Amino acid sequence: MGAAKFLRGLARKFDQSGLAVVVNTGDDERFYGLHVSPDVDTVIYTLAGVVNPATGWGLAGETFNALSALGRLHGKPWFNLGDRDLATHLYRTERLAQGATLTQITAELARRFKVKAAILPMSDEPVRTFVKLKGKAPLPFQEYFVRGRARGAVEKIELRGAHDARPTTDALAAIKRARAIVIAPSNPFVSIGPILALAGVREALAAVRDRVAAISPIVGGKTIKGPADKMMRGLGHEVSPLGVARLYREIASLFVIDVVDHRYLEPIRALGMRAIATDTIMSDPDRAAALATVVSRALSV
Amino acid sequence: MGAAKFLRGLARKFDQSGLAVVVNTGDDERFYGLHVSPDVDTVIYTLAGVVNPATGWGLAGETFNALSALGRLHGKPWFNLGDRDLATHLYRTERLAQGATLTQITAELARRFKVKAAILPMSDEPVRTFVKLKGKAPLPFQEYFVRGRARGAVEKIELRGAHDARPTTDALAAIKRARAIVIAPSNPFVSIGPILALAGVREALAAVRDRVAAISPIVGGKTIKGPADKMMRGLGHEVSPLGVARLYREIASLFVIDVVDHRYLEPIRALGMRAIATDTIMSDPDRAAALATVVSRALSV
Repeated sequence: MGAAKFLRGLARKFDQSGLAVVVNTGDDERFYGLHVSPDVDTVIYTLAGVVNPATGWGLAGETFNALSALGRLHGKPWFNLGDRDLATHLYRTERLAQGATLTQITAELARRFKVKAAILPMSDEPVRTFVKLKGKAPLPFQEYFVRGRARGAVEKIELRGAHDARPTTDALAAIKRARAIVIAPSNPFVSIGPILALAGVREALAAVRDRVAAISPIVGGKTIKGPADKMMRGLGHEVSPLGVARLYREIASLFVIDVVDHRYLEPIRALGMRAIATDTIMSDPDRAAALATVVSRALSV
Repeated sequence: MGAAKFLRGLARKFDQSGLAVVVNTGDDERFYGLHVSPDVDTVIYTLAGVVNPATGWGLAGETFNALSALGRLHGKPWFNLGDRDLATHLYRTERLAQGATLTQITAELARRFKVKAAILPMSDEPVRTFVKLKGKAPLPFQEYFVRGRARGAVEKIELRGAHDARPTTDALAAIKRARAIVIAPSNPFVSIGPILALAGVREALAAVRDRVAAISPIVGGKTIKGPADKMMRGLGHEVSPLGVARLYREIASLFVIDVVDHRYLEPIRALGMRAIATDTIMSDPDRAAALATVVSRALSV
């Protein structure tokens, strides 16, 4: 998850209490009756410094005894839920049943994990991302991504519920108030796309476009991790930083690409964006912090 | 739990597939949004041979990582839920939400655990046992028993919902069809009492009284484990096998007491019951099997 790595870098440079993170909930899923918010949890665990460094999701030093027992009752599991991670999902599910919003619950969880940044689910209403593969019925995102290991030619992304779900007032206020906004090097269709699809979000970003940067998730013609490149291809976009820049040109004034892609600087500038090339491969926290520094300076923060 | 030990003994002597166990659900409780049926689970785990032998409840070799993480979110837990045990509660809770009955769910769980005996929750409708201590408001059973460690002078037992809850047709049919019925040496008020309080259960047992035995949970003036003796005292009953026999005289024809209590044989016979004295301390499975043999022979099975 490029967003999590970038956040870790940002948190090295800036005090967490000055950060607000608007997080996709389109890939939330119910497992065993529990409401799981994979992106929200990854952001919390990352900023809390307890994320499993090997996977980038879940908790470090986790055990999976409940899951193996669930396998006995339900058949082989395909989504990994650690024992301590389960506590997070139990907490969220119980609070939702009590009528609390995802926003409230996320704030409670973040506080328990001593995360000072504001973690803001994009919406308190359900959005479900479906991925349609060639010749198949649309699959809920986690079934495509985890169960199906992101294999197959992507034909279409459906953001079910995105037309009816409203962004939270906290998320919109964060966009309005921020001195700088960075669209992380995440999947433009299934990570950033659901947020942008909510009514008013594109407009809110466009209104502060001067303060918005986006970082290309495409480096050297592919993604570091994840299926963004395959999705771009399948959905008819050019698989390059330029292809991504086109998606964000109306909402971001600055586009950040990797040095290996410097030849795209001019074509991106021709879209009406500022463009800079830097090292965007966040192979360790220092390099993530360096990227955060470059981006924030370019936004004059 | 005297019932579980006795069941283990029964299962040594008889084929499990011939056994039906009607189980108390009055001490069911919700923890972290999960429906926990402690007595049902103890019976399943015991008959599956996977119960924690040290405690008599929960699973052998269990870990508690989810619970410790829940403690971080909710404050120090007082009810122990193991990681693999959680799978059982997750399964039950999800199936209840889907509209399945406790009876169906228990059968599903028993099958997954390869338990051949029929495990029958007493009711598919909620009954909640409350314990009123002197000078205090009534506490749900688990709060009294686990959180409060069964301390305090018991003034009253309230079986909330018992008037409205119906015994299941499976439980009533099992009583009607059984060649022999044993009321286990369990707490007469909070383990057996809720079952007997359901409309029609006492009548169903009275109709087959000749085939019903009860084993005294009081041996030498106290219980082996648990608060039955304190409850008998607090509720104004004689703390002896005779005191227990009086509770069951209309529904059981045979009363089984420990050899140390042989002086109660005649007083119990005077109640109109047959009475036998044998070793009722089930300190190991062999002795539990021996007790099961004595009781079943006395019922001519």
